[in-house]
Amino acid sequence: IVTENPEAIRIKMAELFPADITGLLYELETPEARYLINQLDTPLGAEILAALDPNERREFLEAFTSEEISRYVNLFDSDDAVDLLNEQPIRVREEVIALLEDREQARFILDLLHYDEDVAGGLMQKELVKANVNWNVNQCIEELRKQAEDVEKVYAVYVIDDNGILLGILSLKKIVLANKDTKIERLYDKDVIFVETYRPAEEVAELMQRYDLDALPVVNVQGKLLGRITIDDVIDVITEQANSDTLAMAGITGDVEEDDTIWQQTRARLPWLLVGMMGGILAAKFISFFEGDLKIIPAMAAFIPIIGSTGGNVGIQTSSIILQSIADKTGLDISVWSRLIRMFAVASINGLIISGIVFGFNLLIGNELQLALVVSSALLSVVFLASFTGTVTPIVLDRIGINPAVASGPFITTANDLIGYGVYFGLAHLLLHL
Amino acid sequence: IVTENPEAIRIKMAELFPADITGLLYELETPEARYLINQLDTPLGAEILAALDPNERREFLEAFTSEEISRYVNLFDSDDAVDLLNEQPIRVREEVIALLEDREQARFILDLLHYDEDVAGGLMQKELVKANVNWNVNQCIEELRKQAEDVEKVYAVYVIDDNGILLGILSLKKIVLANKDTKIERLYDKDVIFVETYRPAEEVAELMQRYDLDALPVVNVQGKLLGRITIDDVIDVITEQANSDTLAMAGITGDVEEDDTIWQQTRARLPWLLVGMMGGILAAKFISFFEGDLKIIPAMAAFIPIIGSTGGNVGIQTSSIILQSIADKTGLDISVWSRLIRMFAVASINGLIISGIVFGFNLLIGNELQLALVVSSALLSVVFLASFTGTVTPIVLDRIGINPAVASGPFITTANDLIGYGVYFGLAHLLLHL
Repeated sequence: IVTENPEAIRIKMAELFPADITGLLYELETPEARYLINQLDTPLGAEILAALDPNERREFLEAFTSEEISRYVNLFDSDDAVDLLNEQPIRVREEVIALLEDREQARFILDLLHYDEDVAGGLMQKELVKANVNWNVNQCIEELRKQAEDVEKVYAVYVIDDNGILLGILSLKKIVLANKDTKIERLYDKDVIFVETYRPAEEVAELMQRYDLDALPVVNVQGKLLGRITIDDVIDVITEQANSDTLAMAGITGDVEEDDTIWQQTRARLPWLLVGMMGGILAAKFISFFEGDLKIIPAMAAFIPIIGSTGGNVGIQTSSIILQSIADKTGLDISVWSRLIRMFAVASINGLIISGIVFGFNLLIGNELQLALVVSSALLSVVFLASFTGTVTPIVLDRIGINPAVASGPFITTANDLIGYGVYFGLAHLLLHL
Repeated sequence: IVTENPEAIRIKMAELFPADITGLLYELETPEARYLINQLDTPLGAEILAALDPNERREFLEAFTSEEISRYVNLFDSDDAVDLLNEQPIRVREEVIALLEDREQARFILDLLHYDEDVAGGLMQKELVKANVNWNVNQCIEELRKQAEDVEKVYAVYVIDDNGILLGILSLKKIVLANKDTKIERLYDKDVIFVETYRPAEEVAELMQRYDLDALPVVNVQGKLLGRITIDDVIDVITEQANSDTLAMAGITGDVEEDDTIWQQTRARLPWLLVGMMGGILAAKFISFFEGDLKIIPAMAAFIPIIGSTGGNVGIQTSSIILQSIADKTGLDISVWSRLIRMFAVASINGLIISGIVFGFNLLIGNELQLALVVSSALLSVVFLASFTGTVTPIVLDRIGINPAVASGPFITTANDLIGYGVYFGLAHLLLHL
């Protein structure tokens, strides 16, 4: 693909959208990709670097000098610049900041580096257009003209007082339609939704979704306007949140990606495997109490798997539906009781169908009626019990402030396995008079 | 909360944001909520109705007459209007359209009703501002003034030729900064990303995320501009997609919510429970071949659960990580071989730790060395096999065009259970010379 003819590359790349060039880079080896980037105009190169996946970018930038990096970071939005620098070793980070030509950008970056990634301050960018409440529309347009190059997407102009306190918002639409001499004071909208720097990222995402915002101004505790969060950054938060919940349900702690190191992956996966193992050991210990029974009716052992898997499946299905309800903050607040009643209704139908089929199967293959009865009534009980734990566990975890997705998957499965074996062997011991 | 004093309610509600009133409605009974809505100004009421959850809204609107509904729908964005009407019985739908005062709105709605919900045409709204390429900026501002009331968020003006064919885009920022007499021809950006009406919703979401778009114009096959899709609708698509993948992994088909009917929930859950049951029956049939062995060493039965649960847990962890990689279209294209090698490295560490601990436990509780060896080597094999199926299954399903999330959860668990029991009893039969 790379013909190594600089002029040809430059022309070809100019025809593509930056996001497409990013896609192309993933297909190339690092030295080729670096060569390609260096052939491009610096603004285009910067846009591409900003869009790269963090893991890819870290590896990729190892081949770059701090001077080269600073040339690109100069042109980044401040929030993207901070993201890139946070991926770098401290030495590189400080060199790049020192080398930045745009000293305002350097100041922006130093401001933003204070904030954690997962609060509003860590999501915001410093680039925005603000106007003093005492200006008129013409002054506002002048300010817009000055900032136009730095602020890629404007959305709206924020209105502040002499002390920089956020007063309101003025949409571009209003500016276009207004008379040039009108005072901003008479034009702007005082109902502005804003967020403080220390608010968690999830709250920001919820706020912007709830009020359908394209951009959200960020203020400090005094109400001074510090930056803004744009909708594209929030989409990333939403996607990551969904990802990490799915991983949590699958028994993986933290944000693991396939290209993380083997050690990172092991650390993320081992804890829940150990929980499952402990459950298995407990089950073994428990079943061994019934070794006498098994010696008499070894056919009992054959139904251990179906008891365990049915409990596990019903528990995961139930908890997933409850989790979805909990996550959907806009939804109706359903009482625990009406939740349980619904779950039990569904459990009755599913449980009767499954235990009925298994009962038929048992008679068909010639097992004794009594064993068939024990297996099917154990199955029915397991469906009910798993529905119960699947409903209650996420609700309880949520109430006591633990992310319910984290503990639901493996925790519920293990609990349901143990309960299921208890019911099964208990019933067998009683009904078969062992 | 509801004091039944109309004036007091109106004043109180005027102080709140529409989204907050929506939240309040969920807490009220239907008659109260209806009373509240009717007290509000129609535009405010319309905004609130547009933001309601579809299920809630359907129930809620049953108490309204078609005249009342049409008064609100009159003020909706066309895409929201279509969503609301699609929830209604056909009779109500036709009555409301016939009663709409705004005939342009009625025409918009009839146009949009043709499209499926899950394609670009079903996501778009007809409200947008377009300008002829031959106009100057002043004419464009005039058009903007005319449309300003209907188009809530403008983002940009779309530039078309005399036949309505989309030529390009003109940002509001450029309009603000331009000289009023400049021809649009000289100002607009020809590099516009657009989508055809029949493209699937996921493709729209990917496109808008990839190119960081706030709005995406929709054209027909001839390239004629028909509407636009705004970013807030795409956030809904992304959220729903994530939800339905999580549900699919938990063994639930289709989009089920907690407040769906019991029959809908049963239908969504039963199929995968039956798959699990079939797996359980197969396992039972399989284990029954070894009844003779179990009669001799009943302690073997005690380790059936740990074999099954370890296989299930490892399989789900592995497939979740692979699923995440597959879903992340921007990611590096990793070869199947390098994926397997990584997975095997992680499996070795986890497998050795778990089988080591279980080996120690077995010796500790006084089980025979041979049984302990069988259990631990079966565990180790199960970890490897589950890692293999967890890696390969989603990749294969994805390649043959099945949503890998749908089949991964219950399918992999069932397969791993069966493989695990096979390895366990096979090894036992061989090593214990039964």
